[in-house]
Amino acid sequence: MALNPAPTATRPTNPTFDVERARRDTPGTRNVTHLNNAGAALPPVQVTDAVIAHLRRESDIGGYEAAEAAADQVERTYHAIATMIGAGSDEIAVVENATRAWDMAFYGTRFQPGDRILTSHAEYASNVIAMLQVAKRSGATIEVIDNDHTGQLSIADLRRRLDDGPGPVKLVAVTHVPTQGGLVNPAAEIGALTREAGVLYLLDACQSIGQMPVDVEEIGCDLLSATGRKYLRGPRGTGFLYARRDLIENFEPPFLDLHAATWTAPDTYEIRRDARRFENWETNYAAKIGLGVAVDYALSWGVDAIEARVIGLAGRLRAQFNGLEGVRVHDQGQRQCGIVTFTVEGVTAQEVQRQLSERGVNVSVSLVDYARLDLPTRRLPDLVRASVHYYNTDDELDHLIEALPRSR
Amino acid sequence: MALNPAPTATRPTNPTFDVERARRDTPGTRNVTHLNNAGAALPPVQVTDAVIAHLRRESDIGGYEAAEAAADQVERTYHAIATMIGAGSDEIAVVENATRAWDMAFYGTRFQPGDRILTSHAEYASNVIAMLQVAKRSGATIEVIDNDHTGQLSIADLRRRLDDGPGPVKLVAVTHVPTQGGLVNPAAEIGALTREAGVLYLLDACQSIGQMPVDVEEIGCDLLSATGRKYLRGPRGTGFLYARRDLIENFEPPFLDLHAATWTAPDTYEIRRDARRFENWETNYAAKIGLGVAVDYALSWGVDAIEARVIGLAGRLRAQFNGLEGVRVHDQGQRQCGIVTFTVEGVTAQEVQRQLSERGVNVSVSLVDYARLDLPTRRLPDLVRASVHYYNTDDELDHLIEALPRSR
Repeated sequence: MALNPAPTATRPTNPTFDVERARRDTPGTRNVTHLNNAGAALPPVQVTDAVIAHLRRESDIGGYEAAEAAADQVERTYHAIATMIGAGSDEIAVVENATRAWDMAFYGTRFQPGDRILTSHAEYASNVIAMLQVAKRSGATIEVIDNDHTGQLSIADLRRRLDDGPGPVKLVAVTHVPTQGGLVNPAAEIGALTREAGVLYLLDACQSIGQMPVDVEEIGCDLLSATGRKYLRGPRGTGFLYARRDLIENFEPPFLDLHAATWTAPDTYEIRRDARRFENWETNYAAKIGLGVAVDYALSWGVDAIEARVIGLAGRLRAQFNGLEGVRVHDQGQRQCGIVTFTVEGVTAQEVQRQLSERGVNVSVSLVDYARLDLPTRRLPDLVRASVHYYNTDDELDHLIEALPRSR
Repeated sequence: MALNPAPTATRPTNPTFDVERARRDTPGTRNVTHLNNAGAALPPVQVTDAVIAHLRRESDIGGYEAAEAAADQVERTYHAIATMIGAGSDEIAVVENATRAWDMAFYGTRFQPGDRILTSHAEYASNVIAMLQVAKRSGATIEVIDNDHTGQLSIADLRRRLDDGPGPVKLVAVTHVPTQGGLVNPAAEIGALTREAGVLYLLDACQSIGQMPVDVEEIGCDLLSATGRKYLRGPRGTGFLYARRDLIENFEPPFLDLHAATWTAPDTYEIRRDARRFENWETNYAAKIGLGVAVDYALSWGVDAIEARVIGLAGRLRAQFNGLEGVRVHDQGQRQCGIVTFTVEGVTAQEVQRQLSERGVNVSVSLVDYARLDLPTRRLPDLVRASVHYYNTDDELDHLIEALPRSR
C-alpha cells in the first residue's frame, strides 16, 4: 500500500468560522474523524443532553407526565423547523424518519391509471421502490427525467414532459441531493415549472436539510420530507414533513389515528386541519425535543455560514483526491455540496471503508443496488462516500488522504 | 372535600414478590405514586441506562457506526420479543409504536366491496378511525361484535357472525384489553373460531403485553400489535408487530422502502421474506435496544408472576373503591387485569386527575371521545383510570384513596 502525501493547503478553509467552538460542542470529534455526515452526523452535546434530560424526566415522573411538562419544548420543535424552512408551524408534521414523512405524502396521493409520476436519476432507492409498488397497484406510470450535461436534473426535459406526454402528470417527486453524489438538483427551477403547470411537487430534502438553505417558498415545493440525523445533527429516528397550507385539507393521509383525526360519532371522524394529520399519537418525545434543539443549534450557526464552510471543505477534499493517482471523484452537477464520492483503483469501496475505519476515519459506501437509475447508467461501481460537515477540519481531510488505502 | 380512610388491608398483596427490588430498580418510585402504567409505565433503570448508553455511543463514534457496534443488542430485541410471545424472531417487526404496527397489518389487508370487518366494543379509537377510513375507500363494512353479559366480547355472537352474514368476513380485528377498562377479552377463544373459519385475526395487544402472558400460539392470532411504553416498561416511541410466518409472504406491506424490499433492477423489487418487511430502514436504535432490555427485564420477573401481582393489586384497589361512598368502579369482564376505571360522584375525571397529580399520584382519564363504541352504550362519562404495575405497593394504593377528591 503506497501512501501519497496530501497536497499542502495554502490557506485554511473558511478561516472566520469558529471551528474550535463547533468541535468543543461535539464530543465525537475527540474520538473519530467523522466523514459520514450524510449517513448520520455527530450530534452536538446540546442535542444529546436534551434527549437524555427528557429520558431522565420520563424515568423520574412518568412518560405522559414528562411529555406534559415538556410541552413547550415539543412545540418549539415545530417552530424551529418552520423557521428554518420558511414555513408556518401548522405546515410541519414531525415523524419518525424521512422515509415515513415521504411515505405519508407519496402514498397519500391518489393515482389513477395513466397518471404520470416524474422522478429523477438521483432518486433515492426507497422512493423508487415505493413508486414501483404504487404504479403496479394503480396503473400510474413512472418517467425518469433526463439529466443535463452537468449531471443534474434537466430543466428542459422536465418542461418538455410537463408540456406534453401520454397522460396527466400527477406528481413530480425528486431528490434534492442524491445520497450517492455531491450534486444539488435545481429545486427552485423545478418548483417554478411545477407551479406554472399546477402539478404537485414533492421534494426529498433528506441530504440537503442542514447543510444549505432550504426555503420552501423559494423552492416552490408543495411537500418536502427531511430527516433529523444527517446534516441537521439531530437524533436518529426523527424526520419531518412539510405540507403547503392550502393543500393540507384536501390531502388525506394514507393512515389515520386518534391524533390525526377526531372520532366524532360511532361512524364518523374529522381529520385535523394542520399538517399534524400526517403524524400519529405516540412518538419518541425525547428524540422529538432533540430534533428541535438540533434545528435551533443549526440556526445559531446560520445555514449560509454552514453551507459556505461545507462547500469549502468538500471542494478542498475533491482537489486533494484529484491530485492522487488512482483516485477518482465522481460528483457531478452544476452546484455541489458536502458529499464527496470517489473510487480507489483496485480497491473495493467496502475495503476502503474498512481500512479507513481501522484508522479512525468514518466514511460510508454508496451501493449500486441503492442507485439503479444513476450509478449503472454512469457505469460506476459502489462508491466510497466522504461527507464533510462544518466541524470537520483541514487536518481531518489530510488524515483521510493519508489513511486512504491505495492499490499497489 | 371529605376524606375517607382506606379500608385496612388484612394482609399484604403477593407477599413473596420482591417489590423492594422492583422499586430499587425504578427511580421514579421515589418521586411519584405512578398509577398510569397503562399510559406509560416507569422504566426500570436498566432500560434507561441502555438507551442512554447507546445515545452516548452515537455521540462518541457516529450514528451508523454505533448501530453497527450494537448489532447484537439490536438483534437481541427481536429474540426477546419472540421469546416473550412464543413466536420466531423472523415473525417480529420492530416499529415506532403500536399504532404503526397495527397500521402495517390493517392497511396491508386488501379489502373488496362487501368484505366484512368484525371488531369489538372495546376497540381502540385509532383502530376504529382507520376502519372507517378504509371502509369508505374500499366498500368494506364494519360490524361490532356484541358483548356478553359480563361485558367481554361475546364468543357466541362472533360465531354467529362468522357462520353467516351479508358477505365474507375478511378480518377479525379486536383489542385484547381496552384502554378504558379492566377486562381481558377472550383472545384465545376468538382465535379458535377464526382458525376454524380461516379468517384473518389481528389482535391489538397494546394494553395486555407485559402485564399478562401473551402467547401467539395459544391465542391463535395471525397478526398482533403491541407497544413498548406501557406494561412492558420500555421506551416511548417503540412497538412491534407479530406476523405469522406462513402468511408473511403473501402479505404486502402498505409502504415499502429499501429495507422492506430490495431494488433488483430499475423496474423491479423483491420484498423481504421475514416480518421486517413491515419495518423501514431508519429507526431510533437507542429506543429499539431499550425495548429489548425491557422485554428481557420483564422475562426476568416472569410474566405469570407479574400478572399475579398486578391482579392482586388491582383487586385490592377495586375493593377499596367499592368501600367508598360516591366512588364507582366500572371495570367489566369475566377476567380482569391491572386497569381500574372509576368515577367520583360530583367530580369530573379531569378534576380527579388534577387533584391527584397535586398530591403526587399519576392517573389518567379515559375519554368518551376515545371509546365511542363502549362508554356511551354504557351511559358512562369520562372515567378516571388507575393502572397498577407490580412495582406499586399497598401503601401507594392507600395514598391514592387518601388523596382522592370527594364531593362534599
